[in-house]
Amino acid sequence: MNAGSSGLRGVVVGDSTICDVHASGDLFYRGYNIHDLADNATFEETVFLLWNGMLPTRGELAGFRTALAMEAALPAGLLDVLPALHKECSAMDALRTMVSALATYDPDANKNSETANRRKALRLQAKMPTMVAAIERWMQGKPPVAPRAELGLAANFLWMLFGTEADPVFVRAMDVDFTLHADHELNASTFAARVTVATHADIYSGAVSGIGALSGARHGGAAEETMRMLLEIGDVENVDGWVTEKLSGEKRSAVPGFGHAVYRAPDPRARHLHGMSAELADSLGDRRWLNMAEAAEAVVDALSNTPERMAAGKQPIYANVDCFSALCYHQMGLPMRLFTPIFAISRTAGWCAHMMEQYQPDQKIIWPRSEYVGARNLTWTPIEDR
Amino acid sequence: MNAGSSGLRGVVVGDSTICDVHASGDLFYRGYNIHDLADNATFEETVFLLWNGMLPTRGELAGFRTALAMEAALPAGLLDVLPALHKECSAMDALRTMVSALATYDPDANKNSETANRRKALRLQAKMPTMVAAIERWMQGKPPVAPRAELGLAANFLWMLFGTEADPVFVRAMDVDFTLHADHELNASTFAARVTVATHADIYSGAVSGIGALSGARHGGAAEETMRMLLEIGDVENVDGWVTEKLSGEKRSAVPGFGHAVYRAPDPRARHLHGMSAELADSLGDRRWLNMAEAAEAVVDALSNTPERMAAGKQPIYANVDCFSALCYHQMGLPMRLFTPIFAISRTAGWCAHMMEQYQPDQKIIWPRSEYVGARNLTWTPIEDR
Repeated sequence: MNAGSSGLRGVVVGDSTICDVHASGDLFYRGYNIHDLADNATFEETVFLLWNGMLPTRGELAGFRTALAMEAALPAGLLDVLPALHKECSAMDALRTMVSALATYDPDANKNSETANRRKALRLQAKMPTMVAAIERWMQGKPPVAPRAELGLAANFLWMLFGTEADPVFVRAMDVDFTLHADHELNASTFAARVTVATHADIYSGAVSGIGALSGARHGGAAEETMRMLLEIGDVENVDGWVTEKLSGEKRSAVPGFGHAVYRAPDPRARHLHGMSAELADSLGDRRWLNMAEAAEAVVDALSNTPERMAAGKQPIYANVDCFSALCYHQMGLPMRLFTPIFAISRTAGWCAHMMEQYQPDQKIIWPRSEYVGARNLTWTPIEDR
Repeated sequence: MNAGSSGLRGVVVGDSTICDVHASGDLFYRGYNIHDLADNATFEETVFLLWNGMLPTRGELAGFRTALAMEAALPAGLLDVLPALHKECSAMDALRTMVSALATYDPDANKNSETANRRKALRLQAKMPTMVAAIERWMQGKPPVAPRAELGLAANFLWMLFGTEADPVFVRAMDVDFTLHADHELNASTFAARVTVATHADIYSGAVSGIGALSGARHGGAAEETMRMLLEIGDVENVDGWVTEKLSGEKRSAVPGFGHAVYRAPDPRARHLHGMSAELADSLGDRRWLNMAEAAEAVVDALSNTPERMAAGKQPIYANVDCFSALCYHQMGLPMRLFTPIFAISRTAGWCAHMMEQYQPDQKIIWPRSEYVGARNLTWTPIEDR
């Protein structure tokens, strides 16, 4: 069987009961519509759903939240990894290294049973915000802030980053953002994690592969790129000219934060973060960035989703999840270097759900073939005759 | 297109000019037969071939060897990663963490040009033996031994491990072993590395994914498992009974070091390591382990490759590359926990060749789909009603 050389685009590589993505702009986690989850569920509730296939009862959710909070602190010694890195490293390189090191502290390190993997997933998910916050503070030359057992995961993350209790609007924005990024079927980082653990490598190895894949410019960097664009544009007055130039001429280039590889309709996640960004703008009394993003959205729509282009079979282009998550992060005062690590905190939920599915006994090692198209049957020439 | 759920087994996912594996028992790197390479090439020459698609001239090889030797030392500070790990960690976890940390020291860290990637591959390959040796010595509570610029990669590795100059027979065995493990098309670790860098993540991220995948029990652990088996069998007298029991009854289980997923003929790499193991046995004046492996080979052949089983369409079973590499490592006094990290040193050559191929401009992000088979359109229930 030959799947071509388009990076397995559109090729189905197996069954899954986790995430359902439709080009029509619909997204479901375990059968629940993303809109219901964004409006009603906390991130902890969403993680429980992704890992267990059902919504928790009140008691189950309370237990799960407590378990996550209890595991949020880092083992003594782990933070010593940071001064061993080059001081100008990227936050994603630091995070990948720290998760790799964390594996060595896990009491279930050598166990691969279903229950051991659940415990490992819980520890990893619980510690991701703590690690990201510690990395940012290390980069700022500040000591880490310990997690607080009574805070939820999103609130704890902001607490550990800033060392002050966050505005409830910020906490809700962070929580919704985590829920919306938690999974998206077999994106490249999730597939990298699944390929890695299909050898029965452990959950930390899979997460490390996921973080590595996410660090690539084609994958996790879109929110950061969107914010760079908005900073470069600088003012709502400049949006029209800037975006029009991007979308003009023979070689239309992509506008960061717009368009999606699967959706042929608005990204269902974008509207919730658009709403959160508006709430943040109201709370901060500053609509500058929101106005710019909305202006960009209007220009992209006017130039891309024209009757002529649609009639010619072009794909409509809408703001994607990264456009408004970039806004929210910036409005909350989060530095751009943290945008992709924040994605990693959230996507750890999906990586772990997919890895636990990959560990099921019927799953095989993922080992495709390539078609050899190089030179054949060359004759060895001794070095003195070359 | 649906590729089924057999882990992409037999599915061609793209073209490659690097490695050609035939079920008939033939293996080629860049068109050169593995037998020619094992008999004539050094590991450095093989790496040059894999990365450049042609054998080096004498001058090119001298330059490449010097460049590798010059890059063998680790950056100051990197070894501080080790005391930040749990003291009872696995060598593969330590190696994955150290390679991840090494990324932060690379002067080309943020560059992704073809020349920058070649420099990164060279630095990574050069430092792999240094890192593995340092990890082993750290585990033994000993200080690291610095590399020597005049030694080749295999000799340097043994020097840094033992702190004494190795017997030339040992050096040749290590060198041949590195050449034979350097690449094997899209095995799981190489595919993990390619999936990771297809997002344009950097070479270190890809290598980290490769190390993670290789650490899984279904992938890199076969040499270690073979040696555990031989130690358990203990004496050549016990081989017949032990192997016969494994291969008897309804549920024939696999014998470690025997059988291969692709080859339907003897593994072409095994014969060279069999020969090296015999040379090592002669040099050491001790044929104990070799006799046991040869006895196991005879029993497996007698019980598996029978006319009846072949007529029934069963796959013939032969000793694979891991069987005799395990012997060679043990004969050289290498501890079992290093067997998989040694595989990683060698396979870094192939990972880098494949990653550089994956970075070519025509290559796409690797992003397949899964078939959603879970619950659909579930109605949100408020937590108080669950």
